[in-house]
Amino acid sequence: MIVILEPNVTETQIQNVVDRIQAVGLSAHLSRGTYRTIVGIIGDEEKIQFEPLLALPGVSEVIPVLPPYKLASREAHPRGSIVEVAGVKIGGDHLALIAGPCAVENEDQMHRIAQAVKQAGAHILRGGAFKPRTSPYAFQGLEEEGLKILRAAGDAQHMPVVTEVTDPRCVGLVDEYADMLQVGARNMQNFVLLKEVGKVQKPVLLKRGMSATVTDLLMSAEYILSQGNSRVVLCERGVRGFDTKIARNLFDVATVAAVKQLSHLPIIVDPSHATGQPALVPHCALAGVAAGADGVHIEVHDRPEEAKSDGAQALLPLQFAALVTQIRQLAELFGKTLTPTEESNRATTPDCR
Amino acid sequence: MIVILEPNVTETQIQNVVDRIQAVGLSAHLSRGTYRTIVGIIGDEEKIQFEPLLALPGVSEVIPVLPPYKLASREAHPRGSIVEVAGVKIGGDHLALIAGPCAVENEDQMHRIAQAVKQAGAHILRGGAFKPRTSPYAFQGLEEEGLKILRAAGDAQHMPVVTEVTDPRCVGLVDEYADMLQVGARNMQNFVLLKEVGKVQKPVLLKRGMSATVTDLLMSAEYILSQGNSRVVLCERGVRGFDTKIARNLFDVATVAAVKQLSHLPIIVDPSHATGQPALVPHCALAGVAAGADGVHIEVHDRPEEAKSDGAQALLPLQFAALVTQIRQLAELFGKTLTPTEESNRATTPDCR
Amino acid sequence: MIVILEPNVTETQIQNVVDRIQAVGLSAHLSRGTYRTIVGIIGDEEKIQFEPLLALPGVSEVIPVLPPYKLASREAHPRGSIVEVAGVKIGGDHLALIAGPCAVENEDQMHRIAQAVKQAGAHILRGGAFKPRTSPYAFQGLEEEGLKILRAAGDAQHMPVVTEVTDPRCVGLVDEYADMLQVGARNMQNFVLLKEVGKVQKPVLLKRGMSATVTDLLMSAEYILSQGNSRVVLCERGVRGFDTKIARNLFDVATVAAVKQLSHLPIIVDPSHATGQPALVPHCALAGVAAGADGVHIEVHDRPEEAKSDGAQALLPLQFAALVTQIRQLAELFGKTLTPTEESNRATTPDCR
Amino acid sequence: MIVILEPNVTETQIQNVVDRIQAVGLSAHLSRGTYRTIVGIIGDEEKIQFEPLLALPGVSEVIPVLPPYKLASREAHPRGSIVEVAGVKIGGDHLALIAGPCAVENEDQMHRIAQAVKQAGAHILRGGAFKPRTSPYAFQGLEEEGLKILRAAGDAQHMPVVTEVTDPRCVGLVDEYADMLQVGARNMQNFVLLKEVGKVQKPVLLKRGMSATVTDLLMSAEYILSQGNSRVVLCERGVRGFDTKIARNLFDVATVAAVKQLSHLPIIVDPSHATGQPALVPHCALAGVAAGADGVHIEVHDRPEEAKSDGAQALLPLQFAALVTQIRQLAELFGKTLTPTEESNRATTPDCR
Repeated sequence: MIVILEPNVTETQIQNVVDRIQAVGLSAHLSRGTYRTIVGIIGDEEKIQFEPLLALPGVSEVIPVLPPYKLASREAHPRGSIVEVAGVKIGGDHLALIAGPCAVENEDQMHRIAQAVKQAGAHILRGGAFKPRTSPYAFQGLEEEGLKILRAAGDAQHMPVVTEVTDPRCVGLVDEYADMLQVGARNMQNFVLLKEVGKVQKPVLLKRGMSATVTDLLMSAEYILSQGNSRVVLCERGVRGFDTKIARNLFDVATVAAVKQLSHLPIIVDPSHATGQPALVPHCALAGVAAGADGVHIEVHDRPEEAKSDGAQALLPLQFAALVTQIRQLAELFGKTLTPTEESNRATTPDCR
Repeated sequence: MIVILEPNVTETQIQNVVDRIQAVGLSAHLSRGTYRTIVGIIGDEEKIQFEPLLALPGVSEVIPVLPPYKLASREAHPRGSIVEVAGVKIGGDHLALIAGPCAVENEDQMHRIAQAVKQAGAHILRGGAFKPRTSPYAFQGLEEEGLKILRAAGDAQHMPVVTEVTDPRCVGLVDEYADMLQVGARNMQNFVLLKEVGKVQKPVLLKRGMSATVTDLLMSAEYILSQGNSRVVLCERGVRGFDTKIARNLFDVATVAAVKQLSHLPIIVDPSHATGQPALVPHCALAGVAAGADGVHIEVHDRPEEAKSDGAQALLPLQFAALVTQIRQLAELFGKTLTPTEESNRATTPDCR
Repeated sequence: MIVILEPNVTETQIQNVVDRIQAVGLSAHLSRGTYRTIVGIIGDEEKIQFEPLLALPGVSEVIPVLPPYKLASREAHPRGSIVEVAGVKIGGDHLALIAGPCAVENEDQMHRIAQAVKQAGAHILRGGAFKPRTSPYAFQGLEEEGLKILRAAGDAQHMPVVTEVTDPRCVGLVDEYADMLQVGARNMQNFVLLKEVGKVQKPVLLKRGMSATVTDLLMSAEYILSQGNSRVVLCERGVRGFDTKIARNLFDVATVAAVKQLSHLPIIVDPSHATGQPALVPHCALAGVAAGADGVHIEVHDRPEEAKSDGAQALLPLQFAALVTQIRQLAELFGKTLTPTEESNRATTPDCR
Repeated sequence: MIVILEPNVTETQIQNVVDRIQAVGLSAHLSRGTYRTIVGIIGDEEKIQFEPLLALPGVSEVIPVLPPYKLASREAHPRGSIVEVAGVKIGGDHLALIAGPCAVENEDQMHRIAQAVKQAGAHILRGGAFKPRTSPYAFQGLEEEGLKILRAAGDAQHMPVVTEVTDPRCVGLVDEYADMLQVGARNMQNFVLLKEVGKVQKPVLLKRGMSATVTDLLMSAEYILSQGNSRVVLCERGVRGFDTKIARNLFDVATVAAVKQLSHLPIIVDPSHATGQPALVPHCALAGVAAGADGVHIEVHDRPEEAKSDGAQALLPLQFAALVTQIRQLAELFGKTLTPTEESNRATTPDCR
């Protein structure tokens, strides 16, 4: 940690900063420049990480040299982690495809779509039972009924299932039905929820908040990891942008590459929520894979005009199948494996509840 | 609601859109332009608000003409609402000052600061017992112990208290101690929490999320209102900006004025979190009042270098007192009342638990 | 300047950095921490400011401790500058009001509006003769004819005039007619134009670009100052925001306060362009003054529905007059003078061409 | 164009809007809804495009149904345009690689780097002779001397050259030396410059401004096209983002796909300026190609630590060569041709000055 002092700092103030550093058992190393004096802190930076040095008189800036996340950092685990979701691997050389409708609407819809995405090559089935909707008057999801339908559809297709959990009181319930728990973008800094999903034994899909920096995202992962759950998969799904005529959010593909360098955790992309425009989804999906993503998350609906939520952003099954073909070719180019559907069936069956 | 069709829409597609509108009991009015055909929907727009018209083939854009919030809209309550917090009025001609430390640290700290802000003219005491910290390793708050200390400090100064609630399971607990419940920026779209605070009988301070539009903010208020709790106070506290060297967030003062026009709910400003810079806090506080805010929320600490959270952004009690003097003059200019300290004491005592 | 080295930096790389620093006549001061080694540079930082230290192997970050602007910095001129525009002072205790239509349309329009804003209390008349329009098909301004009309309208009302210059080849022409040259937001980093307006003897109104940081803005001012023209007035007019339903841009009032601290140059606000919404303009104007702005720039049109440019964002003369009354009261509260119209007439006449 | 009226609009106001529309020879079609009345305009929308309908009393919103750009729109030219730069094709099935140093520094540097990028497979050589630097004290470029050096280096390698023009007075000079003129991000809305480059017979590389929407970008292209120069190539190079710790700008890959749908103009990506981080450049380059970009623009320097500008973001020649190999494979997958170096030599020689 480096402390930059104010131009007009007094000797007493400098001494005060040094005393404060020494009080926690660290050494301070002064460097008096022509314009500014700086203090280097020598020793275990963590000891002072949460000391309010910045509020000391005479202090202008405090610059940490270590990232604030530890368990999530690449240093903690130099080889990238591979997270397994009921037999489906995400990370390393394994590129995973997660697909399904925005919301679980009914049994028939879920089975139809599950079959379609399975056939197209998807590995994990998604579907929302608890929907965090902007409006209190919008469809809020089928709740436990939805979880049951999702589970049944996944089982019928031999696919693991992922679904969002929004309430710390429902983590146990969702855990009963799902193979992977999703924390949505709006809850990325719902630390209470993060702690709860950190206590279960299932992998967690953590979506990046709309205004979250990479540090924010990795700190939220750190919340889950620090509770003992090491199976976190990150997801880039667009940040707030100023050109909402083009896309709902701004798909930040550089962050995928940056996260791969800073962290060992797998990261996938969700171009459906990132753009909200079916015409842009395939292009962004491919861009994400080319940038190094470990998977792709796509919303698929066979009757989007009947969808109860986000129908307009879903791909049709045929469009999804065409995209999978392209993703497969791209994956091969980058030395990644996209498990063929048939083998995937056999492989995942025994694990699959 | 207006539906703009694609340039190359077919007659069958047009008929399909019209049928869909009529199916929910509304009328469709076609207008065929030179380049585009548009469909005006006549009747109760709400019937179709969540129908996925946008996903119908041939539809290019759907433009609602009504705001999606109802209870929060100015139309619902043409005179601005006044929210009372244990005798302290916020809204109308009443400008309220909320002040206190970021976190409740201990009894002595809380009593010292409560006394200081009370003396300076603050009406409501703030202090966090449940702290939503970016890092799992940072101080997370004293929890119930903190609530007790805050309550005692408020009582000693005859001030109502406001504190943040982060967990739907703790709403009841916080309700026992606090006069006003705060929902923080990171939880603005934690709809589960919003529903819970919508069920209590206490006023709620709802802070704007860092990437929330005004519609998002008012929809979150609508969640609370729709549960039966009509006492919501909004708070502008800065959005994500690109110049973080200057201020932590971008203080959006135009939103204060816009919210006053679109909604009847009071809105206050929090320049402490908006800027994170004590040198900018007074300027932004005054700007907020000049733009029409119904109150100001300021972090105050008498020993910022000892603060366990956000010490570097707090004003010293003397700085706060100087600011209150300026706010009082400004309030008078705008015909608003900033209740004098002494009277406020007497007024609030009987209400105060 | 502080150079933070990579965790795995080699001794040879460290020596290379030190050599490089010493090669330009500066001293290097090493501080070896537990995790990182840092190099403090002692001596005249400017000597190395544009050396690509960051590209040296082993260098992780380079942190300047001096701002990159010198002439524009508060240190260069601890007392705030007062810029005089043909007798009208901007800065210090002088709050200036600049008003007029977006574009000069014709003689009659310009004279009517000039009279109206003069009567309401404006000090400087604005009007565009060269319009930087987003569309090549939109009205591009009356050019020299417009300058003549503006000059005549200003003279008739004894008001100095400000108008935008967009072409380095037209700086001389605009200089012939105007008392102050405006560089628009879209040209804030048109460095060729900045250099040209730096060579004239007239004050320059430099508007902040839509994505300019405060450093960017002050560096653009530095371009003008470094050419010998010390009379620069800055203008905050909104940055790109994500909620364009509420306002065209995001009015950044904290920047006004920050600029007053970092620079000696006066800064005014332009709520007309910042919001694009007449209903928000007065609130943001007052917020700007409360935050410390040295003036306000407002678009006024008496027949907005006939305006050839930006009619929908202009205030009517009556609305402007009401706002001036409020600004005057606010200015007094902050110990600032808003020269009474009558005196202003007399004072500016002799200077006025 | 659709005009949405205010809820409380009067009949006189409605008539006024209708009169205004009819006055320019168009028809108005009223649709009275339950909450709002809307007016559809029938006829040639352009006639009224810049009429300030929005400023008419009773008008709430004006929604155009045609894009404001015409020559740049996909409708104007349903097959994508191919722009030829001295024999090198950009667009259609042709993927072009532009590479070179940020600035032309001297003959030796330019020849070394030209040879290196040519050998690696680049088609067009870049190098700045007029540098738009944020600081007036930074290296501003070698000007005409730089143009000569660039030209000679291009000729020696049989490569066309592209260089930035920043001053409308220098367009002729740059035209003498370069095969393609670049308008930089900071000048994207320097309409005076756009008009000048619209008058020359050379292709133009138009970079997106940091806060430009897609509409803004295409309108700037329209300025050039409307002057008679149809050879415009667009370039995505990142927009302002909030996470500047990760990347200098936010690389907006969805915009590449969106522009391909809205416009016939080729669009390339510049990951060097978009990220400013060599470690992210290859990932973003590949993402851009996967999203459909017609070319890639990369800064390359063989001695970045000696570079006079932006050295820290350049790739080394070896890194660039490795990237070209990956781009070539990716291009093939998408059915695009990346002309082999040898053939390209032969092909471009005769065209090349």
